[in-house]
Amino acid sequence: MGKQTAVVGILMGSDSDYDIMVEAAKVLKQFDIPFEMIVSSAHRTPERTIEYVRGARDKGIKVLIAGAGAAAHLAGVVAAETVLPVIAVPIDATSMRGLDALLAMVQMPAGIPVATMAIGLAGSRNAGIFAARMLATEDPELEKKLLQFKKDMAAGVIKKSALVQKKMAEDGLI
Amino acid sequence: MGKQTAVVGILMGSDSDYDIMVEAAKVLKQFDIPFEMIVSSAHRTPERTIEYVRGARDKGIKVLIAGAGAAAHLAGVVAAETVLPVIAVPIDATSMRGLDALLAMVQMPAGIPVATMAIGLAGSRNAGIFAARMLATEDPELEKKLLQFKKDMAAGVIKKSALVQKKMAEDGLI
Amino acid sequence: MGKQTAVVGILMGSDSDYDIMVEAAKVLKQFDIPFEMIVSSAHRTPERTIEYVRGARDKGIKVLIAGAGAAAHLAGVVAAETVLPVIAVPIDATSMRGLDALLAMVQMPAGIPVATMAIGLAGSRNAGIFAARMLATEDPELEKKLLQFKKDMAAGVIKKSALVQKKMAEDGLI
Amino acid sequence: MGKQTAVVGILMGSDSDYDIMVEAAKVLKQFDIPFEMIVSSAHRTPERTIEYVRGARDKGIKVLIAGAGAAAHLAGVVAAETVLPVIAVPIDATSMRGLDALLAMVQMPAGIPVATMAIGLAGSRNAGIFAARMLATEDPELEKKLLQFKKDMAAGVIKKSALVQKKMAEDGLI
Amino acid sequence: MGKQTAVVGILMGSDSDYDIMVEAAKVLKQFDIPFEMIVSSAHRTPERTIEYVRGARDKGIKVLIAGAGAAAHLAGVVAAETVLPVIAVPIDATSMRGLDALLAMVQMPAGIPVATMAIGLAGSRNAGIFAARMLATEDPELEKKLLQFKKDMAAGVIKKSALVQKKMAEDGLI
Amino acid sequence: MGKQTAVVGILMGSDSDYDIMVEAAKVLKQFDIPFEMIVSSAHRTPERTIEYVRGARDKGIKVLIAGAGAAAHLAGVVAAETVLPVIAVPIDATSMRGLDALLAMVQMPAGIPVATMAIGLAGSRNAGIFAARMLATEDPELEKKLLQFKKDMAAGVIKKSALVQKKMAEDGLI
Amino acid sequence: MGKQTAVVGILMGSDSDYDIMVEAAKVLKQFDIPFEMIVSSAHRTPERTIEYVRGARDKGIKVLIAGAGAAAHLAGVVAAETVLPVIAVPIDATSMRGLDALLAMVQMPAGIPVATMAIGLAGSRNAGIFAARMLATEDPELEKKLLQFKKDMAAGVIKKSALVQKKMAEDGLI
Amino acid sequence: MGKQTAVVGILMGSDSDYDIMVEAAKVLKQFDIPFEMIVSSAHRTPERTIEYVRGARDKGIKVLIAGAGAAAHLAGVVAAETVLPVIAVPIDATSMRGLDALLAMVQMPAGIPVATMAIGLAGSRNAGIFAARMLATEDPELEKKLLQFKKDMAAGVIKKSALVQKKMAEDGLI
Repeated sequence: MGKQTAVVGILMGSDSDYDIMVEAAKVLKQFDIPFEMIVSSAHRTPERTIEYVRGARDKGIKVLIAGAGAAAHLAGVVAAETVLPVIAVPIDATSMRGLDALLAMVQMPAGIPVATMAIGLAGSRNAGIFAARMLATEDPELEKKLLQFKKDMAAGVIKKSALVQKKMAEDGLI
Repeated sequence: MGKQTAVVGILMGSDSDYDIMVEAAKVLKQFDIPFEMIVSSAHRTPERTIEYVRGARDKGIKVLIAGAGAAAHLAGVVAAETVLPVIAVPIDATSMRGLDALLAMVQMPAGIPVATMAIGLAGSRNAGIFAARMLATEDPELEKKLLQFKKDMAAGVIKKSALVQKKMAEDGLI
Repeated sequence: MGKQTAVVGILMGSDSDYDIMVEAAKVLKQFDIPFEMIVSSAHRTPERTIEYVRGARDKGIKVLIAGAGAAAHLAGVVAAETVLPVIAVPIDATSMRGLDALLAMVQMPAGIPVATMAIGLAGSRNAGIFAARMLATEDPELEKKLLQFKKDMAAGVIKKSALVQKKMAEDGLI
Repeated sequence: MGKQTAVVGILMGSDSDYDIMVEAAKVLKQFDIPFEMIVSSAHRTPERTIEYVRGARDKGIKVLIAGAGAAAHLAGVVAAETVLPVIAVPIDATSMRGLDALLAMVQMPAGIPVATMAIGLAGSRNAGIFAARMLATEDPELEKKLLQFKKDMAAGVIKKSALVQKKMAEDGLI
Repeated sequence: MGKQTAVVGILMGSDSDYDIMVEAAKVLKQFDIPFEMIVSSAHRTPERTIEYVRGARDKGIKVLIAGAGAAAHLAGVVAAETVLPVIAVPIDATSMRGLDALLAMVQMPAGIPVATMAIGLAGSRNAGIFAARMLATEDPELEKKLLQFKKDMAAGVIKKSALVQKKMAEDGLI
Repeated sequence: MGKQTAVVGILMGSDSDYDIMVEAAKVLKQFDIPFEMIVSSAHRTPERTIEYVRGARDKGIKVLIAGAGAAAHLAGVVAAETVLPVIAVPIDATSMRGLDALLAMVQMPAGIPVATMAIGLAGSRNAGIFAARMLATEDPELEKKLLQFKKDMAAGVIKKSALVQKKMAEDGLI
Repeated sequence: MGKQTAVVGILMGSDSDYDIMVEAAKVLKQFDIPFEMIVSSAHRTPERTIEYVRGARDKGIKVLIAGAGAAAHLAGVVAAETVLPVIAVPIDATSMRGLDALLAMVQMPAGIPVATMAIGLAGSRNAGIFAARMLATEDPELEKKLLQFKKDMAAGVIKKSALVQKKMAEDGLI
Repeated sequence: MGKQTAVVGILMGSDSDYDIMVEAAKVLKQFDIPFEMIVSSAHRTPERTIEYVRGARDKGIKVLIAGAGAAAHLAGVVAAETVLPVIAVPIDATSMRGLDALLAMVQMPAGIPVATMAIGLAGSRNAGIFAARMLATEDPELEKKLLQFKKDMAAGVIKKSALVQKKMAEDGLI
């Protein structure tokens, strides 16, 4: 997957999580961070999950991202099989609107940490950015990209503020 | 553990869950159902947990009970490694008062069922009774004990109602 | 209902629960477990419910499944009238998104257990699978089917993972 | 229970609910409304509950009050067996702090109403007052007592406000 | 409003609550209970609300129903101005899905009871039925209608169960 | 923005909040209160936000309104940089339906107050009205407008009540 | 109450709220803002509450603070009777831990704003500070005090940080 | 602070958070990771916070940990001022039991990630371990310590399981 060896491994519990988890992938691509992304379930394919995670470090993976919904055990199961840092993305997949996945991920007992992001799309994007931040502590080029990314976000806000002035004029408010 | 081969296996995620999970054990003892009870964590001892669960059926275990708090993955991890029925007891172990454990247990995705009981003591007792109900479908002696247990509960309510009349008289209400 | 005597009895509180509860029925059919399914309300037809439950065991029923929404008392009322194991499926039928049904089912007081599944479709499917797991402890043929079902689920995940690789390629990510 | 025929019947699911439900009794006594109070569980003594409720109207009962905690089915089960008005008092008996009992009582499906009061002591007192309000619509003497009770409450607030002035002076605030 | 003097007064906080509150009105009409229904807000028209409530008893009103959403103070404000029984219908009018209205209604402090029904349509229908149950304690004709209504509901369930059998056959399940 | 110097400054965390926050702007315009409205994020443009807030008082701003969703830090960050009164509007921008924004705004620790309004549209409108109420304490003309606004709201309720009578007649209820 | 005419009026629904609401009073005293504080309930003394609020403006009151627990209607009822700005303090007085009071206060419908603070002590203190911020927009002396208060808070943090270094040394961490 | 240059910077919003945040410090000390820990508030000392964070990277800090309660903005404010990875520890400091801090931390909008741990002690310990996991990706010595730590945890579970057997014997269960 990609020309370079993957540094980030993304797991999703179900292929129905693709539309959320692809956001993390897009962010990593944007920062030129090699990654791979697979479907592997804590419950339906525990062995596959364990095998992937145990092999991750030796393959060159430095960060794992796990996205799952409902009783989202994936990130915890992953974190139990490695000492690599594991980022969790809770997904809104039930009538509980992601609160189930959030609590099932963030409330990890002492000893096995899981770094939980926001529920859904924002969380998936932030999982990618957080991975980048981690890797950037040892990669000045990546750090520069992150600083530029921050500047671009700020510039985007200013552009959007100008847009809002236009809308206000259209709405007869100014 | 016990003279007879265990039919029910109880797992708890931490020894701090003992005071809750012992209630399930007491119920099983009361119904003369052989059981064993161990500490095994989904996160701190995943291998031990998997090994125990995989060996359970051949040892004669017919029902598994898993009690855990916080991001309570134990029951789900257990259910993923067996086709035996798995009962879950969510434990109030964090400031979320067991809601985290409840959702992390009950909201299992389709394919891997976990039979969730109430949070805490009531849930632990009911895990034992539910195991008894399952086993009783093939054990007329046990079924008789369950029917007697039901009658005793009903009789207990009537005694308590008489007690309440006494309290009301003491409180000058009747 | 079916050529064979029903071994599982499914109750739903309202016919509007059909689309959810039919999932449990489909699972049972898939495992060749004879079942019957009726509408009976804890509140609107308490006598019918009690009568059905009291007669269940002698008819050959070994497991009861009760699906209901809102203040979902059905499973508890059923469990109070039998010593058969009772599985509960909370249904998202109000603005509380099934949280009301979940708590009304799972928080049963000590003495009368109800085995609660996830809210909605996943829970209904899992109710069927859990019934199968219970029955399989005395039925090696059914156990084989469950083991195969588990393998098929795992295989399905691997196929879906391949699909995700294809999507990633389409999205220009790999 | 009492010299006069009971007009209000109070049921509690467990004798551990006595300290809460006695508040309803005290209110009824204060308004000279004859009542009786029993322990009867929806789950442990369903028959006793049904029998009591079915006989209530012919005994002269005009209002039923049901207090219960956890998956509090009592009020719904009572309301299903009568056309008398049923008042529900959710009790904080689990780690869910009464939210389970509240939702299990208030979210009754259309057709079988249950008049739910606040969780705990305030709800129990209000159940007594609400029963009085209902009965007062046909009892001018009772209506007068309720109007006086309202006046006394208002007077109590004014006295407490004077007390607060005193406290403020002690605290050096005025 | 109607040929007869209203016995039930329905208040809604906003005309946007009409589609919910009309269900209570339909129930009352079905039981031939004279009623009136007005829009009056606790916050936007406090005087109108107080004036209406204070005059209610002398006009012949015996029961008040108040439906409101958001920070739903209407029922409490109404109950504070009368000793008539007040029924509350919490309405799902915000992103909190009616939980705000439910808690703002049901958690009334001791002294001023409000009889809270389920959130939304079911609650509105039940408010009408509960009013009927209250009035029926002094009206044998109305009591007969309620008993018939109960029978009709039970018959409806049995019809729906037959329908479910048909659906199951269509779905190839039986 | 506007011919007069802005007295109220509205900040929104993202231009996607425009449809909500424009309601506050419309209210201010309706009361002839000069205002300005910008996009500025606590997280993406912290410097811009701080700079705007620090300069607000000297520009003549007397009230700040901050609308944001998700982990809504904007109002708190604004309140930390000024002693002007800050009004917060939590926005429903995630699957948590605004509960996240509400708690992130309203639960400010002692020392730095933020005046929180309802989630969404109602809260945005009320932010405008609350700003008007604050300014009216020193502006008798504005106070008159607010009193008229209150009267108009009351009159609106009475008109809507008449409309409800019409609907009831159409629905055959009166 | 005090030598000067009160500028802030504090209402609490019950004298049991004193320990919370006294914090707002202490803050106002600290800023030399004249205030008065009374007990007045939305439900038990609606007339007293209305009378107080209607007379507030002419007495010189510029800001009203209302603290209440449970179904906390006080702030809304107050805001409905005035165009003065009203600050709400939700109080943790039930098993719902103040969530009931928070939602009953903050979710005010459009038209009648209530400025809600945090639940409990922090909210009460912040109600006092927010009142000061409002009044300071027209009172440069008060503004200076607020700026000094802000500086003192910042200085306090730095002192506490030094204290933490000491504790760390004691704990052998540095 | 410490002989070596700090690699991890811990911020807490208040010195009252010390008992929680010291757990992160203890973990770092146990892994010989140099750290420093200060009190700095997002709201009371925004400048101090920003200054500290902006200078962190050049001082050699590679990971920031922020612990705060209530409307916990600290982690978000920190993350907005740096591209270093930021770990958040929500603290149970209000009647909302840490749910407020959790949502205020974890629900960060896309662009500014914050890696959220469990509420309270477990979260603080895990923040330390997660920091170690991050640093270990470039530090084989640290990785070895983490692997040993994992083994020790597993061994601890087995010891605790033996203890449970002893307790069971004492309780007459085996």
